[in-house]
Amino acid sequence: MTGPKPGPKPGPKPGPKQDRSRATRQRLLEAAVACLAEHGWAGSTVAVVAERAGVSRGAAQHHFPTREDLFTAAVEYVAEERSQALRTIPTQDRRAVVAALVDLYTGPLFRAALHLWVAASNEDQLRPRVTELEARVGRESHRIAVDLLAADESRPGVRESVQGLLDMARGLGLATLLTDDRARRERVVAQWARILDEALG
Amino acid sequence: MTGPKPGPKPGPKPGPKQDRSRATRQRLLEAAVACLAEHGWAGSTVAVVAERAGVSRGAAQHHFPTREDLFTAAVEYVAEERSQALRTIPTQDRRAVVAALVDLYTGPLFRAALHLWVAASNEDQLRPRVTELEARVGRESHRIAVDLLAADESRPGVRESVQGLLDMARGLGLATLLTDDRARRERVVAQWARILDEALG
Repeated sequence: MTGPKPGPKPGPKPGPKQDRSRATRQRLLEAAVACLAEHGWAGSTVAVVAERAGVSRGAAQHHFPTREDLFTAAVEYVAEERSQALRTIPTQDRRAVVAALVDLYTGPLFRAALHLWVAASNEDQLRPRVTELEARVGRESHRIAVDLLAADESRPGVRESVQGLLDMARGLGLATLLTDDRARRERVVAQWARILDEALG
Repeated sequence: MTGPKPGPKPGPKPGPKQDRSRATRQRLLEAAVACLAEHGWAGSTVAVVAERAGVSRGAAQHHFPTREDLFTAAVEYVAEERSQALRTIPTQDRRAVVAALVDLYTGPLFRAALHLWVAASNEDQLRPRVTELEARVGRESHRIAVDLLAADESRPGVRESVQGLLDMARGLGLATLLTDDRARRERVVAQWARILDEALG
């Protein structure tokens, strides 16, 4: 092509109003994850999150009509942010990849997701939403792990090896809930990264 | 020895009253685990458990003065029962041992423990009790796993391999909370039992 590329058809530019609305939504989502991680499901309501985010309750309810809407959207939003960040880590060193994958499950996001998960197991209003969310986030984590580990899933057992690694990461996240489990976790991760490296060939 | 063995010094024989008290205590503990698994921490009180066990609230409070007493004792009691049962499985087949260990984390006991665990992360009254309980139960599970797997912990990496397996089992238990994950779990367990068998030598 020689001439200048034709620009996109002119449409309404996102104005300061849309920007403000997006920023409000984002503040609410981040506050919701922090609230869930700190206070659990019982202590997490739209009102508490609105106050934490410095947003009026009316504005919060405009973005998220129900408590379920707010907290499932929040866990999904933060999970996507973290997945994107993971995609940028270098993949030459498989052991570093394993450590980075396990780190996904030891911070406030996993803690928040765990509260939502456990609450959903007893609450009919929450269960289908969280089940669907977990399946989606789980598939995405698996896909990222396969890519980063350069795992060839056409070989027998490789798919299950990667799945087991992510199950272990979740278990390690659980162990970190009540005590600072870092020193033990690092030793376990180092050993299993070695084992997995051999298993994946 | 030829003559009859001397009998124990005569003491107060446990009478029907003590038997009844023990049976009541046991009924309360079993009802508490079932209640926690089904309704979560928020829905689990001494009164609800007493009713479920067919015991008066006064008798329940005589055995367990606080809600924390009842539910931590219940998780500990059932965990010990399950550990004892595990000690009787045959250990020739390491893959069967791995499957039996993972099974520890996929039933109502793990579900109950998980509710207690997650509640403890936000409740100051519960946290020290559950932290101490989890450490004790965790050490015992590790000891049993080492015995059943005939794992030689003097070899480098073996201790961490067994720990990682139990972390994976907890993660698999978590995955079973909202959906029936059995088919996937069996494939993961089969693959990791193979990998662990090689790793342990």
